[in-house]
Amino acid sequence: MMSFDRLQEKIDAMQNPTVVGLDPDLGNIPPQMLEKHVAEKGETLEAAASAVCEFNFGLIDALCDVVPAVKPQSAFFELLGPSGVLALKQTCDYAKEKGLYVICDGKRNDIDSTAQAYAGAYLGTVKVGSAELFPFDVDALTVSAYLGSDGIKPFIDMSAKYDKAVFALVKTSNPSSGELQDKRIGSQTLYTAVGDLMQEISAGTIGKYGYSRVGAVVGATYPEEMEFLRDRLRSTFFLVPGYGAQGGSAAEAAKAFDKNGCGAIVNSSRGIIAAWKKSGGDYQSAAREEALRMRDELRNAIGKY
Amino acid sequence: MMSFDRLQEKIDAMQNPTVVGLDPDLGNIPPQMLEKHVAEKGETLEAAASAVCEFNFGLIDALCDVVPAVKPQSAFFELLGPSGVLALKQTCDYAKEKGLYVICDGKRNDIDSTAQAYAGAYLGTVKVGSAELFPFDVDALTVSAYLGSDGIKPFIDMSAKYDKAVFALVKTSNPSSGELQDKRIGSQTLYTAVGDLMQEISAGTIGKYGYSRVGAVVGATYPEEMEFLRDRLRSTFFLVPGYGAQGGSAAEAAKAFDKNGCGAIVNSSRGIIAAWKKSGGDYQSAAREEALRMRDELRNAIGKY
Repeated sequence: MMSFDRLQEKIDAMQNPTVVGLDPDLGNIPPQMLEKHVAEKGETLEAAASAVCEFNFGLIDALCDVVPAVKPQSAFFELLGPSGVLALKQTCDYAKEKGLYVICDGKRNDIDSTAQAYAGAYLGTVKVGSAELFPFDVDALTVSAYLGSDGIKPFIDMSAKYDKAVFALVKTSNPSSGELQDKRIGSQTLYTAVGDLMQEISAGTIGKYGYSRVGAVVGATYPEEMEFLRDRLRSTFFLVPGYGAQGGSAAEAAKAFDKNGCGAIVNSSRGIIAAWKKSGGDYQSAAREEALRMRDELRNAIGKY
Repeated sequence: MMSFDRLQEKIDAMQNPTVVGLDPDLGNIPPQMLEKHVAEKGETLEAAASAVCEFNFGLIDALCDVVPAVKPQSAFFELLGPSGVLALKQTCDYAKEKGLYVICDGKRNDIDSTAQAYAGAYLGTVKVGSAELFPFDVDALTVSAYLGSDGIKPFIDMSAKYDKAVFALVKTSNPSSGELQDKRIGSQTLYTAVGDLMQEISAGTIGKYGYSRVGAVVGATYPEEMEFLRDRLRSTFFLVPGYGAQGGSAAEAAKAFDKNGCGAIVNSSRGIIAAWKKSGGDYQSAAREEALRMRDELRNAIGKY
């Protein structure tokens, strides 16, 4: 089944279009958990990476019957060096084992054989001798499109071969996203041009729910732009950051969905994984409670389930 | 000394503005080297990563008295999973030990605490308990600017703190780079807008040779655009891909340099590291010979040394 079809069916099965952003900033991990690993392995990157793994595994256990997907943010793993990248791999593997759809948020981008290498790393394989090995093997990867179609096509090809998908940055959720993305190119904006280009080059990859293998990152913090893009990019699945901590509401995020209530998934990172800081309870229960609250809020706003 | 001042002085000391792109695609490694590691460790990612390390260390040994800098391409390391990222770290460490300036080519990009995490990973530190640890600690990182100044400022701040630098994608060397980058925004192109924005937000970071901490990637394959940007972005150090294998000539690459013959470095990857495939000799001698040939060609074209 096509990658985004699988995602849509997981969303429908859970009646919950939420993806949990795994952003394991050390400040988001309960202090006693980090201290335990430091006591064993010293004040090292290895200790921090083990703590990150324990934290993520706990979140996955607490959330895997409530949310359809997780989005590990590569930066927080890379911040712990090679041990951190091992923790990323272990986190992705554990999430898949628990039935979750895994979107690696790496915003990768390059051209030619280099783009192929990124695509192979996250969505495909590498050949060592006669063995075909899967380095990270996630379901989808975020990518940036500034290099043009040369930079995206290798990801589309790899996605088609191994049934994966990508999300390209179109209109991001941050305050300065407009500095370049909102610039007018003739009668359009740059983000529209990027969205159009992504839809054009992925036209041959549409699955049964009408969505291609190239999705788009569109922030909930810009509801007008969201509405415009939802109407324009009919075959583009949306990954929606900006809900919660960044200020986007459920009603704003709901604009990302098509008339059938399909075609988008809304991210929350700190709001869920660091919920324990506000609630004061254990981090697993706090995350689960917030995920259920967000699910109900999105359900109401979308009016589907 | 400011990061790009150090780079300029290394270039002047070697009389060679070349950076060697370490793109360890397994196809670029002599087959018997890969076979040796496979015989020891099986057809595994670990075997491939060890082979990559041996290959890179050999290249660094052969080139460290001829070139001032190397540019490991992260994608080819990530393609080998966490073991590959360990090989990236080991390659960067070995290159620094041999006195080389290390540019990690990761084209990273994100916002807020996530951009800070990338900046900490490559250009700064992470705190684990009371220890301040340096995860990758390279001299410079390539970044993408599509997210606007929010996405670049955390890298500038980290660079200022640890004396590092970044190169932002401005006008890339690939055939489709114009699809978005050449779009006209009023009287300018998008790549000009990106270049202007980068120069503006790095204005307070100028070193003694007149260059700021935010350089630009500008391809040798677009010589007119190069000339225009060199004239416009007076305080922007250029990293120049596209020479050699991609079709850019030394005369075209020479347009990246200012009137004093400063302010740029020209990349060659396959041309140097896979020179053994053409010459038939051992890979180290072949790489060194090609690096010397390229040096002489650039010297002539720039007319400085």
